[in-house]
Amino acid sequence: MPITPEQQAEIDAQRAETTPTRRATAPGIEAHLYEAKPVLDHGIVRAIDYMGDDAAIVQAARVSYGRGTRTVSNDEGLIRYLMRHWHSTPFEMCEIKLHVKLPVFVARQWIRHRTANVNEYSARYSVLDREFYIPAPEHLAAQSRQNNQGRGTVLEGEEAQRVLDMLREDSNRAYDHYEDMLRTDGQQGLARELARMNLPANVYTQWYWKTDLHNLFHFLRLRADPHAQYEIRVYADAIAAIVRDWVPLAYGAFEDYRMGGAHLSRGAVEVVRRMLAGEEVTQETSGLSKREWAEAMGVIG
Amino acid sequence: MPITPEQQAEIDAQRAETTPTRRATAPGIEAHLYEAKPVLDHGIVRAIDYMGDDAAIVQAARVSYGRGTRTVSNDEGLIRYLMRHWHSTPFEMCEIKLHVKLPVFVARQWIRHRTANVNEYSARYSVLDREFYIPAPEHLAAQSRQNNQGRGTVLEGEEAQRVLDMLREDSNRAYDHYEDMLRTDGQQGLARELARMNLPANVYTQWYWKTDLHNLFHFLRLRADPHAQYEIRVYADAIAAIVRDWVPLAYGAFEDYRMGGAHLSRGAVEVVRRMLAGEEVTQETSGLSKREWAEAMGVIG
Amino acid sequence: MPITPEQQAEIDAQRAETTPTRRATAPGIEAHLYEAKPVLDHGIVRAIDYMGDDAAIVQAARVSYGRGTRTVSNDEGLIRYLMRHWHSTPFEMCEIKLHVKLPVFVARQWIRHRTANVNEYSARYSVLDREFYIPAPEHLAAQSRQNNQGRGTVLEGEEAQRVLDMLREDSNRAYDHYEDMLRTDGQQGLARELARMNLPANVYTQWYWKTDLHNLFHFLRLRADPHAQYEIRVYADAIAAIVRDWVPLAYGAFEDYRMGGAHLSRGAVEVVRRMLAGEEVTQETSGLSKREWAEAMGVIG
Amino acid sequence: MPITPEQQAEIDAQRAETTPTRRATAPGIEAHLYEAKPVLDHGIVRAIDYMGDDAAIVQAARVSYGRGTRTVSNDEGLIRYLMRHWHSTPFEMCEIKLHVKLPVFVARQWIRHRTANVNEYSARYSVLDREFYIPAPEHLAAQSRQNNQGRGTVLEGEEAQRVLDMLREDSNRAYDHYEDMLRTDGQQGLARELARMNLPANVYTQWYWKTDLHNLFHFLRLRADPHAQYEIRVYADAIAAIVRDWVPLAYGAFEDYRMGGAHLSRGAVEVVRRMLAGEEVTQETSGLSKREWAEAMGVIG
Repeated sequence: MPITPEQQAEIDAQRAETTPTRRATAPGIEAHLYEAKPVLDHGIVRAIDYMGDDAAIVQAARVSYGRGTRTVSNDEGLIRYLMRHWHSTPFEMCEIKLHVKLPVFVARQWIRHRTANVNEYSARYSVLDREFYIPAPEHLAAQSRQNNQGRGTVLEGEEAQRVLDMLREDSNRAYDHYEDMLRTDGQQGLARELARMNLPANVYTQWYWKTDLHNLFHFLRLRADPHAQYEIRVYADAIAAIVRDWVPLAYGAFEDYRMGGAHLSRGAVEVVRRMLAGEEVTQETSGLSKREWAEAMGVIG
Repeated sequence: MPITPEQQAEIDAQRAETTPTRRATAPGIEAHLYEAKPVLDHGIVRAIDYMGDDAAIVQAARVSYGRGTRTVSNDEGLIRYLMRHWHSTPFEMCEIKLHVKLPVFVARQWIRHRTANVNEYSARYSVLDREFYIPAPEHLAAQSRQNNQGRGTVLEGEEAQRVLDMLREDSNRAYDHYEDMLRTDGQQGLARELARMNLPANVYTQWYWKTDLHNLFHFLRLRADPHAQYEIRVYADAIAAIVRDWVPLAYGAFEDYRMGGAHLSRGAVEVVRRMLAGEEVTQETSGLSKREWAEAMGVIG
Repeated sequence: MPITPEQQAEIDAQRAETTPTRRATAPGIEAHLYEAKPVLDHGIVRAIDYMGDDAAIVQAARVSYGRGTRTVSNDEGLIRYLMRHWHSTPFEMCEIKLHVKLPVFVARQWIRHRTANVNEYSARYSVLDREFYIPAPEHLAAQSRQNNQGRGTVLEGEEAQRVLDMLREDSNRAYDHYEDMLRTDGQQGLARELARMNLPANVYTQWYWKTDLHNLFHFLRLRADPHAQYEIRVYADAIAAIVRDWVPLAYGAFEDYRMGGAHLSRGAVEVVRRMLAGEEVTQETSGLSKREWAEAMGVIG
Repeated sequence: MPITPEQQAEIDAQRAETTPTRRATAPGIEAHLYEAKPVLDHGIVRAIDYMGDDAAIVQAARVSYGRGTRTVSNDEGLIRYLMRHWHSTPFEMCEIKLHVKLPVFVARQWIRHRTANVNEYSARYSVLDREFYIPAPEHLAAQSRQNNQGRGTVLEGEEAQRVLDMLREDSNRAYDHYEDMLRTDGQQGLARELARMNLPANVYTQWYWKTDLHNLFHFLRLRADPHAQYEIRVYADAIAAIVRDWVPLAYGAFEDYRMGGAHLSRGAVEVVRRMLAGEEVTQETSGLSKREWAEAMGVIG
């Protein structure tokens, strides 16, 4: 259960209230604001605030006095042009603020994206809740045999059960001891900044995370990718669903030119050209290493 | 004349329109939105968009589900505590976007603040207007005799007139030649990206500039300071007047702890302690260099 | 035991070798290079590489063709002036790269300093070692009674023993289970990216961390401060000892103007002035809140 | 003449001196250190300092105690893998510091790359030299007819001569007046921070610019590109020639995967697949807009 009835009531109260503003307003994301989107077993993603819309990208690119937009098709063409040619600054004119609840090991990957503003719940100052990520059985994957940094088949039978038992029991015992160390009835009570060290990396934390659209797209490209760890990918997917409604033109361009596109090396471009000219090209005659050949064939094949 | 009647009409149209939003709204800055505040002879500052308010700072610091605020006095105390103890991340939760028209030599100082998003009017792509900063006579200052990086007294009489004449004539001639090089009637017409090199540093440019409140305070501390060059200080002052209305609690703390406060070196703290203990301290007995002594006396004396 | 004999042998081999370079070389830090300074029970700090020295700061400030230095006293005066007046860019011309082994909960605080380059040992890709931070008894502090974010007295007797037992046993059990989940003899073996979630926050990780001197001073000011958590402060102290030898003039200025100095609010400056003018000022007549008064008195004695 | 005999003597003196260091040393860049590479008519690029080499990238990726390298072919494979998969942090472990003399309009483009450390010669504090960029006749290009942001054919005959005359005369007159305003013989002398506003954008400035290899590659990808303005591209080319010798393996990967590679949109990948399957595809049947089709054909055709 990601949120409590009290929290839901606070959210409902916030969603019920609107005020007039002179700012650019994006109806697509207004519908999502404050709502807790469930992710994993106890996680959430909530859009809390935003600045700008598709028109703000156009306005910045044109540096105009008014909204800067002309026709929708004209605006879309400009946005697609900017995305295709790697212009980053117009997309930086949009900003989003999210409230996220997530396991610590996911937070540790996420924070590597440095161009963002973050306020995390402080376990020096406050006591964490008893909430731990326990994978659903279908996500309990074995180590990949091909790839040092990937997952293979799903664990089965008794092995799966043992792993889940260990995760659950160790989490609960760690939390029992955490509480025990903090207790001040009849003992001094350990400092919170020390007691937290007993909690495992599947404990949930939460933060406010704010970033601009350019850097968010970069985050989504890396984290909504099939190579990303499943547990962060589901957060990226939940965010992507919000962004799609917020800035539909920019998101469409992002899908076509980043998520759905592909980068070919100099050698791979050469191979494609030779193939299109009718030549039979093999890995041996391609000039590419086996790995590069396999990756290139993955794109065009 | 910083803006044209057409631009004013666009601004009025934007100001006339409001839409309901679920986002946090700050009435103090809504009143300023889109308005062109005149700065120098042709410059402007306009607040175009913002995210967050005083409560957003509090909410981030508490990482709460609702707005996170309690009472105003409680919120103010927390904000002042955060400012006093150099907490930066809660202030980063607020964001502002400005439209600024400014001379190029001011833009060159301004851009040194790297933690901001910028879209500048492109003189590769478009033609700049014939607008140049010519100082008002009372700001036509001589080089300081004490300080390699400062201004002294105001120029007088014929010297002042000659300087103004040179600035005006050179600007206009440079712009005449700029137009002449660009002409395509009966000649090829020089590329805009080359022709612009003939324009002097007092020509006006414009940009959209977006930053978070923490970095904006840093900008204001350095640029609204008496040591900053007058021509950038007036921009900082115009922005400060907007920020004061946007986040009054945070701005009040900023004034008390940054703008109005002072930093004492280890040696200067020692001097103050000795003085408060009744000792007569002079520069010679202070252990401070002459320059450090003068600066410390400037604070406490 | 922070490092193994094999690691020590690698370090000794690196230290034994020198090559000639045309670059600026700082003898003070050369003496430290590669050496593993022990921190906490299993942690280390090692200086791996650096760029620049005190003269590089001076050279950048003067933008000169040669080394830019004049006399030592002249250089020192310039460096102190730059520090006093919050010039940051000349200090950014020096860069340092460190290899650090540290508990995960310390790494989580550390990474909040975003202006740095980091490569962390990947627990998706590799298996972590069985190394956990267990506080020495004299650092096993109770929660502060005054301060939600601080430590009080040291735990005593049986309570201390129970806490240490829990930390040790939970760490070891978590690691036993981590190994058990990863095993591939007679079972599939859980993916490393999942198994790691069972490890507590006192497990050691390691990274290469590279930053410029300006941002390093900012880190040291916050983390070598008495208010910082002890477990990160000892890392800051170990780094400070290296920096002192690397750039002695800059470090001296940092100590005088940052670490050893103090910031007074507008109100506190006013109080000092009234006191120096002979007035008896109390908290009630000061215009400061109790908290602000206490903090101001903490500075001026 | 980009540098004076006195400056050359300083450079020669610096190049003549070596000191032993324990740091990683890259012979390829040592040969370039301090040397002034001429760019445009008065500009220079000089490598002043560096940190790291190809092995430092490998070491960071492996987070090892020693140098982390195995065999050259193994290291090369890892570096190419990191580049192909957009890993950025290992490349951030290398750092370079350059001294650059460049026209102000080039500096204004360059500074948009925010992730770098910069110290620019201050025209508030010092007096600029009489040095202006005047294009060579073969670079005096007309505005492109197809592209709002590009160059067309070279100006010819009398038009070319008139443009060059205007640039030369306006530059010289602006500088004469600059000197005249600053004079203090028989007049007060205008503040330097004001007088500089009379100088056009082709005046030369200089700075120390320091950045990491990842961000430098990003700079080179955008600025050594045929779409970049010629006057910044020649700087990027001069830097690229230094980087190639500094980190040959990383530079080779950069050339193959960034400079020489190409990005295909989702639609363009689909077109390539259909073509390779033997289908005749035209713009009309491609699902791409005319502009996107032209760009895709530019890659594969």
